[in-house]
Amino acid sequence: MRGKGAKRLTALLARLPGVGEKTAQRYLYHLLAQPSAYAVELGDALRALHAQIRPCLRCGNYTDVDENAAESAPVCDICSDPRRSDKLLCVVARPTDVLAMERPGSLRGRYFVLGKLLSPLDGVGPEALPIGILRARIEEDGVEEIILATPPSVDGEATALFLRRELAATGVLVTRIASGVPHGGDLEFADAITLGRALDHRQKF
Amino acid sequence: MRGKGAKRLTALLARLPGVGEKTAQRYLYHLLAQPSAYAVELGDALRALHAQIRPCLRCGNYTDVDENAAESAPVCDICSDPRRSDKLLCVVARPTDVLAMERPGSLRGRYFVLGKLLSPLDGVGPEALPIGILRARIEEDGVEEIILATPPSVDGEATALFLRRELAATGVLVTRIASGVPHGGDLEFADAITLGRALDHRQKF
Repeated sequence: MRGKGAKRLTALLARLPGVGEKTAQRYLYHLLAQPSAYAVELGDALRALHAQIRPCLRCGNYTDVDENAAESAPVCDICSDPRRSDKLLCVVARPTDVLAMERPGSLRGRYFVLGKLLSPLDGVGPEALPIGILRARIEEDGVEEIILATPPSVDGEATALFLRRELAATGVLVTRIASGVPHGGDLEFADAITLGRALDHRQKF
Repeated sequence: MRGKGAKRLTALLARLPGVGEKTAQRYLYHLLAQPSAYAVELGDALRALHAQIRPCLRCGNYTDVDENAAESAPVCDICSDPRRSDKLLCVVARPTDVLAMERPGSLRGRYFVLGKLLSPLDGVGPEALPIGILRARIEEDGVEEIILATPPSVDGEATALFLRRELAATGVLVTRIASGVPHGGDLEFADAITLGRALDHRQKF
């Protein structure tokens, strides 16, 4: 096959995260080996994706567009959940991090998606972070605790330090998720920084 | 997100080879983070896939459908390549194996895609293999050598053994691709069967 159809699809598939040309080609051949209905159905679902899902106007997480409602709700399920507290606000970098933080099922507060992290190398400075919107949210909702759940990476730590400083004047309690040896992890395979953090953040047992 | 749009797309993506629910979700969030044009373009390419590519009527490999030609060529690029010899026929299990065998660039013959391998566990018996078509091809083209390039797996070896027996009466030279320690591989990590084959098939050096 040298036609543009196969080439174009392979190139598009190779833009998915973690997918190189070889994996894209594997997907292509898998799709060809299946009845055409699968490729068509997948194609339709992809075409419709952005029309069915949009950012929540309140927290920045993704939310479904309800096709049956006359007007879709302006906020997501989490923002509109009456059993959650407005007083506890978890700040994350991306929508996928909301998904991750929801996994334990213990956080009964709400979220705020930054959309990006400070990254001097990529030219992302403090002015790119939605600090004004975050401050307004804290005031409006009477937030009492901000959990900084940016990732334990260089950019994530820098963003957390920056937010701590920016929010100091608000008087709100600012906390940071713990960093240490992961559950089930073997100490032997943990890197020095992780082990250092695990030591620094040790707790009375 | 709990809507059927996201669920359906995740389920469809999870049917790609090697993709589980977590990877599918990662693809979904990646697609959402990109401009909608990407998802739409990928969707269009998938919808069009089976209309643009079909099996070669001669070898069973995939071939492009030429949209500009009044009538598309009945055979693929390899089958219609005049610089290749009809006398050398490489028998493979699947279209992806043609792609693999073309990588060295040294095979100047043609291909025959079986479409399946003998697999007693999956109920694939000798009657499912296109032996009649293969015999006709050998006779028509005056094939002098058949290279059995089925994979060095249980099913692949069984199929190669079966084909050798079936083709014995044709008088054609039947060869089998070599099996041994892969290039760049470490002996330490090679399994016993591979090392046994590497020993059995050792050559004068």
